[in-house]
Amino acid sequence: MNLLELSRRPAPWRRVRGPFSDVVVSSRVRLARNLAGMPFLTKCTERQMQDIVELLRATLLTEILSEDAFYVDISSADPLDKDLLVERHLISRQHADGKGPRGVVITTDESVAVMVNEEDHLRIQVLAGRFEMRQCYERICQLDEQLEQRLTFAFSSRFGYLTACPTNVGTGLRVSVMLHLPALKMSGEIEKALRAARDMHMAVRGLYGEGTEAVGDMFQVSNQTTLGKSEEDIIREFGEEIVPKIIEYERHARNVLMSKKRLALEDRIFRALAVLRSARLISSEETMYLLSHLRLGVCLKIIEDISLDTIDELALLSQPAHLQRYFGRDMAPSERGMARAELIRKKLAG
Amino acid sequence: MNLLELSRRPAPWRRVRGPFSDVVVSSRVRLARNLAGMPFLTKCTERQMQDIVELLRATLLTEILSEDAFYVDISSADPLDKDLLVERHLISRQHADGKGPRGVVITTDESVAVMVNEEDHLRIQVLAGRFEMRQCYERICQLDEQLEQRLTFAFSSRFGYLTACPTNVGTGLRVSVMLHLPALKMSGEIEKALRAARDMHMAVRGLYGEGTEAVGDMFQVSNQTTLGKSEEDIIREFGEEIVPKIIEYERHARNVLMSKKRLALEDRIFRALAVLRSARLISSEETMYLLSHLRLGVCLKIIEDISLDTIDELALLSQPAHLQRYFGRDMAPSERGMARAELIRKKLAG
Repeated sequence: MNLLELSRRPAPWRRVRGPFSDVVVSSRVRLARNLAGMPFLTKCTERQMQDIVELLRATLLTEILSEDAFYVDISSADPLDKDLLVERHLISRQHADGKGPRGVVITTDESVAVMVNEEDHLRIQVLAGRFEMRQCYERICQLDEQLEQRLTFAFSSRFGYLTACPTNVGTGLRVSVMLHLPALKMSGEIEKALRAARDMHMAVRGLYGEGTEAVGDMFQVSNQTTLGKSEEDIIREFGEEIVPKIIEYERHARNVLMSKKRLALEDRIFRALAVLRSARLISSEETMYLLSHLRLGVCLKIIEDISLDTIDELALLSQPAHLQRYFGRDMAPSERGMARAELIRKKLAG
Repeated sequence: MNLLELSRRPAPWRRVRGPFSDVVVSSRVRLARNLAGMPFLTKCTERQMQDIVELLRATLLTEILSEDAFYVDISSADPLDKDLLVERHLISRQHADGKGPRGVVITTDESVAVMVNEEDHLRIQVLAGRFEMRQCYERICQLDEQLEQRLTFAFSSRFGYLTACPTNVGTGLRVSVMLHLPALKMSGEIEKALRAARDMHMAVRGLYGEGTEAVGDMFQVSNQTTLGKSEEDIIREFGEEIVPKIIEYERHARNVLMSKKRLALEDRIFRALAVLRSARLISSEETMYLLSHLRLGVCLKIIEDISLDTIDELALLSQPAHLQRYFGRDMAPSERGMARAELIRKKLAG
């Protein structure tokens, strides 16, 4: 597997959908871990960072994930490749822009990505296309146990796992979902819904995590607290109480739109499809905005001849790094607008 | 001929195009005349207004325009019918909203419309689809002469024809063209071009004449001065110097767009067509805006499968009164948005 192959298709896990896929676009669980006996990264020398990379890379690739995974050295990676990994949610923007020896181990199905030397020595993440917090959690526990059989993690009997940032201390567990909330946005209820989530100690972020804007009505909702609660409680509360409630809000808003403002809704959706099918120049932002309408149209069966797979593919391939890899050349933003429009027209051709 | 039949199709003269039809949408010449021995309308009694109507109606219908014309009594007309005539440029907004006995004589081909008791006793207008000021002028002279053989107009040997408003005194002649200037608008040069026209003593107005906004990049350009110049000079200057210059500006701007910004231009044009073909709700204003792009696309051969006739038809039928006559019922604005979108989709179906 190499990054060029990767760049040509959405992650395979995206195609696995479930009963909540009308709202939940993806599930993600991650653990933060640090090696005992090594300083946190802010205090590490370059040499120590290199040692961490070598140890973790070898352990992960040869002992745990074996032939199904590959390593990308982020410290020496091409800027476009780094952007590509960020666009795929396999590394964070911070990791791409960081300093010193660092990398990421990725399984070929992209369901597991382990960042080495991001903010902590280890950031393990498991991704899924369906709303399945528990399965993701079980998978990550398994990886965590396999690692702990071979390595010793910084742990305090009082606080739990120790992490570079206090918000991760304790379980080091963060669970999140990417939610598509176009009806709450259209109906103007989005702020109320997100406030309710925040009141339940959830963090709400944009498409690319912390500090990013909500693009295409995509909102990342995750737990804030990792300390003072058991992993079991976090998973249960998040997966069985909080997220189902937001899903319910969104579905209710969709039902209201369908029964009371169907024509205006159809108008937006058919216009979005028409513009995507005919534009000759289009920005990444407008693409996400229009794809959001399209996704809603498909979920509500207003649009029947386009699949969610096609929408996911376009949402991914229309992003700058993917687009340049797709066309096989570096492009200035103005040229990208043309190439993006061409790609979208091709993929949506009737 | 009745107004319902009229409402279902654009004026036949619109279909007659010429070498300047890429920019000139229509030509118009009008004369203002008042009967000698009758006060101007502001001083007329209701009885006198009625007498004027009866005299002019009879003269026009039975002696001059004969079986090819019909009369509409504006004072008793249905509000929707009045709006219909305004949308067709057969009467002015002022005439529709006026008071007292008044009407309009219209030839069935709609190339001649004579308003009785608008601002003057008589406002004779001749319309054409091509840029042909001289032919329109010759036609109107012929009508004027036929009228003068039967009636006496208020005339001063010093000033010429006398009119209610001093701006019409003299020849009483106003010549105008409706110009489609999308490229000057897009390139930001429109103000400069219109300023040049105003410097040459032209009035520049919107789609429905005095006091209206330019909709769909349509600008009505007409002579300001009717006094101190011969009819011949007015026609020659306007038709052979001023308008050709504006046409040249617009064509130049189109060439620049085609050679330097072709992709952005095509993007706007194809998006406009796509939105028109897919919207479920659309306002009259947005329709005119998008049809303007479409018209430009057809003139530049970027769009090949749509005719100017279809665009003219949509520009007309999508207006509120026409739309309601087309669907055969009164509609609230919100319902019109839906009906308009339906009509447009039908007429533009590929």
